[in-house]
Amino acid sequence: MYDELRPLFSPRSIAVIGASSSPGKWGHAMVVRPIQSAFRGPIYPINPKAKTIEGLTAYPNIRDVPGPVEMAIVTIPAPMVPDAVRDCAAKGVKAMVVISAGFAETGVAGKALQDEMVDIARSANIRLMGPNGMGIYTSEVRLNTAFDFMPQPGGISFVSQSGTMGAYLLGIASDKGYGFNAFLSVGNQADLSMADYIEYLGEDERTRVIVLYIEGLKDGNRFLKNARNVTRKKPIIVYKSGQGEDGARATMSHTASIAGSDATFDAVCRQAGIIRTYDVSHAFDIAEALSKQPLPKGNRVGIVAGGGGMCVVSTDACNGYGLSVPELDEDAVKQLSQYLLPHASPPKNPVDLAGDPRGMTIARVAEELARHPEIDAIISEAPLWGITPQNIQERLDAAEKISRIPEKYGKPLIGLSMKRFMTGIVYELMRDRNIPFYEFPKDSARAVYGLYMYAGLRMRSESMPTLPNT
Amino acid sequence: MYDELRPLFSPRSIAVIGASSSPGKWGHAMVVRPIQSAFRGPIYPINPKAKTIEGLTAYPNIRDVPGPVEMAIVTIPAPMVPDAVRDCAAKGVKAMVVISAGFAETGVAGKALQDEMVDIARSANIRLMGPNGMGIYTSEVRLNTAFDFMPQPGGISFVSQSGTMGAYLLGIASDKGYGFNAFLSVGNQADLSMADYIEYLGEDERTRVIVLYIEGLKDGNRFLKNARNVTRKKPIIVYKSGQGEDGARATMSHTASIAGSDATFDAVCRQAGIIRTYDVSHAFDIAEALSKQPLPKGNRVGIVAGGGGMCVVSTDACNGYGLSVPELDEDAVKQLSQYLLPHASPPKNPVDLAGDPRGMTIARVAEELARHPEIDAIISEAPLWGITPQNIQERLDAAEKISRIPEKYGKPLIGLSMKRFMTGIVYELMRDRNIPFYEFPKDSARAVYGLYMYAGLRMRSESMPTLPNT
Repeated sequence: MYDELRPLFSPRSIAVIGASSSPGKWGHAMVVRPIQSAFRGPIYPINPKAKTIEGLTAYPNIRDVPGPVEMAIVTIPAPMVPDAVRDCAAKGVKAMVVISAGFAETGVAGKALQDEMVDIARSANIRLMGPNGMGIYTSEVRLNTAFDFMPQPGGISFVSQSGTMGAYLLGIASDKGYGFNAFLSVGNQADLSMADYIEYLGEDERTRVIVLYIEGLKDGNRFLKNARNVTRKKPIIVYKSGQGEDGARATMSHTASIAGSDATFDAVCRQAGIIRTYDVSHAFDIAEALSKQPLPKGNRVGIVAGGGGMCVVSTDACNGYGLSVPELDEDAVKQLSQYLLPHASPPKNPVDLAGDPRGMTIARVAEELARHPEIDAIISEAPLWGITPQNIQERLDAAEKISRIPEKYGKPLIGLSMKRFMTGIVYELMRDRNIPFYEFPKDSARAVYGLYMYAGLRMRSESMPTLPNT
Repeated sequence: MYDELRPLFSPRSIAVIGASSSPGKWGHAMVVRPIQSAFRGPIYPINPKAKTIEGLTAYPNIRDVPGPVEMAIVTIPAPMVPDAVRDCAAKGVKAMVVISAGFAETGVAGKALQDEMVDIARSANIRLMGPNGMGIYTSEVRLNTAFDFMPQPGGISFVSQSGTMGAYLLGIASDKGYGFNAFLSVGNQADLSMADYIEYLGEDERTRVIVLYIEGLKDGNRFLKNARNVTRKKPIIVYKSGQGEDGARATMSHTASIAGSDATFDAVCRQAGIIRTYDVSHAFDIAEALSKQPLPKGNRVGIVAGGGGMCVVSTDACNGYGLSVPELDEDAVKQLSQYLLPHASPPKNPVDLAGDPRGMTIARVAEELARHPEIDAIISEAPLWGITPQNIQERLDAAEKISRIPEKYGKPLIGLSMKRFMTGIVYELMRDRNIPFYEFPKDSARAVYGLYMYAGLRMRSESMPTLPNT
């Protein structure tokens, strides 16, 4: 499967069948977006009449393209697609992304058309994503047909059964600074299905975590088998929609998916070691931490924050997920105290910096916590606020010191910061050193819990517990 | 209590005792922030040596100020504060905000100093907030001593036992577009306590919703009595920290508050009609809706969104809170269909616009849902994306039409939008017409549920259920 899907994730050249010069049309966006995302290979617009589209030479048929074409993106009306697949076969295309709608989702005739399309593709060894999807983003070759923005690069690969919802969620996650390797809007899954994508992504070294948005499972047994293999190597996190009665009905109306019994789906997740979330945003919060941080060996969290309130709320949040924030022994308290201002409370954990503005205080306390044998993970407020020309070098040094902790001690470190401070070179240093950031204490605690859940699966081969719906 | 606290919320003039010219000091921020927030009255810096501070004439003692002073903000060292209160008494000051730390939170001697300070203030009829707080924001007179930014104006008044955490939370909520009337960092509550603040805010017409961050209750019986009175008029939403074992310990270390039994606090909330949230961010999400929208008469939600995935996830989120998304009858479906594109699915509710980019389609569908007798509340994706010079008038008309729905039909309408689109005149029109916005379907569903919870209290005098921790 890995070799078969390489042309989808890393095409050296693409053609857009149905390319258009009219802004607002899919065929236009499919040409413009790859140009804007700086796709690494040639882009060939295919249009029976146009000479050029957006400055690129257009060809009447993909067979007329002078060079080789590895992937074709298709936006022409459904009845014309089978012929386009024949043309692609003749040209030696390896992968197709069919955006066009009007197939199985419309009824029996559409289903027949879809089957015909798939038959032609398969007999020509073309693997096909779609139809009725929103396209692909793959950071490896900077190919973006799915968004009018470029996601933050990173280790999360996101496969979505809903194109618009997928794009919406990835947009918000990218705004939060989470990093993505790939996005696939899989549409009707006529040829390639979720089971195939996770098999590929399991072997893909650029993918560190897989997130799935699922409305209904196809080929459940193969999905379960593949998922079980993949979760031994890397985490899979799933949000399944259509949970409630009204939601299941809405799912049917949307993608004709049968939501299926929620309990059955839960059992599949447990058996396959999949982390299931009941809140769609939680999937990405956890994925971000899993894509960037080492796994903890236990559930004991050390917390350092600039104020007492943040300490208390973070501690509550950890307790809420069954994580402990253990009181440290006298030796450790003495050791930590030397870094704190005189008026600070005894740093028993959580460690309240009592308004100390120095970045290096955070760094020293966080490192001391990491060194302590009874601490498995650290939540640390980040030294991102109140940066001035006078203190920026101190902050950079502190950020560097904090960012080295996970590798040095083999323990995860999660950053806490208001989004508005996540800008500038101190933030960028920590981001590039793989520190994940969250605004709310509860999100940080959930991130630690996500790491802990997956660590449990890895260490003890347990079945995967469901993430609490909190 | 209302008249006594007016000088705190609406002072005509302020003095800063301990004003400083040195950036980084509290006494500097307390002068600069009110200047930057365009406080509506005179600001008098008090400093024994300086002639001017930040361009304002400074006075050696508050008694030397030529005009009347209604409120004094105090940042001098604790041992000097009692004398400052005597000076304030002589000057006829009505309210004091004591920022200085070093009182009861430090031990027995500090407690004695605090008692002395309060005795002097009370015998001079001065009401005192603090000590050991972070200050005040009150939009009525544009007085801001608490933040280095100006919050969005609105109907939420937020009283916090933690200064830094309070400022952090309000900052994030303000970034989300939520609107605030006031913020109080109450510190040690030496004179005025939570019970007093809620009594005042209950009568304050500018306050539509009260949010409290509590670590431990003082004067529980009076708090309960006052809260019960207030919640008949307007909602009170509480986040209580120190829930778990480690959190309760951290609370003790932070503000010497005894977190108390969580079950007892729960009982207080139920009896008083307070909405308790277990996630600190949920308190603001709900408050924003309650401050802007009418109450629903039932739990039936109509949903309109641009894509099927958003419809399904929103429906799931509603079901998760026990809200129903009822399937509409054939007449309604027929009525709604005429507004939709030909390829859209039958709009049984949720209504999937199938990518229709016209703002007016959203507006017509939302209004039709509001008109339907079996719908009590509407969640609507907002027409904020893809705005161009060509379609902006259409979007403005649609936004206007959508924004009129709540008043016209007496049903709440909740907006869904990515934060990145919440900018520009279409957004501003809807914001100024009191439409609350949320990024995630679950946040919107929770907002409807918060309205529904409070409606239940108002309509049936029920005891208030706890918001599910989801």
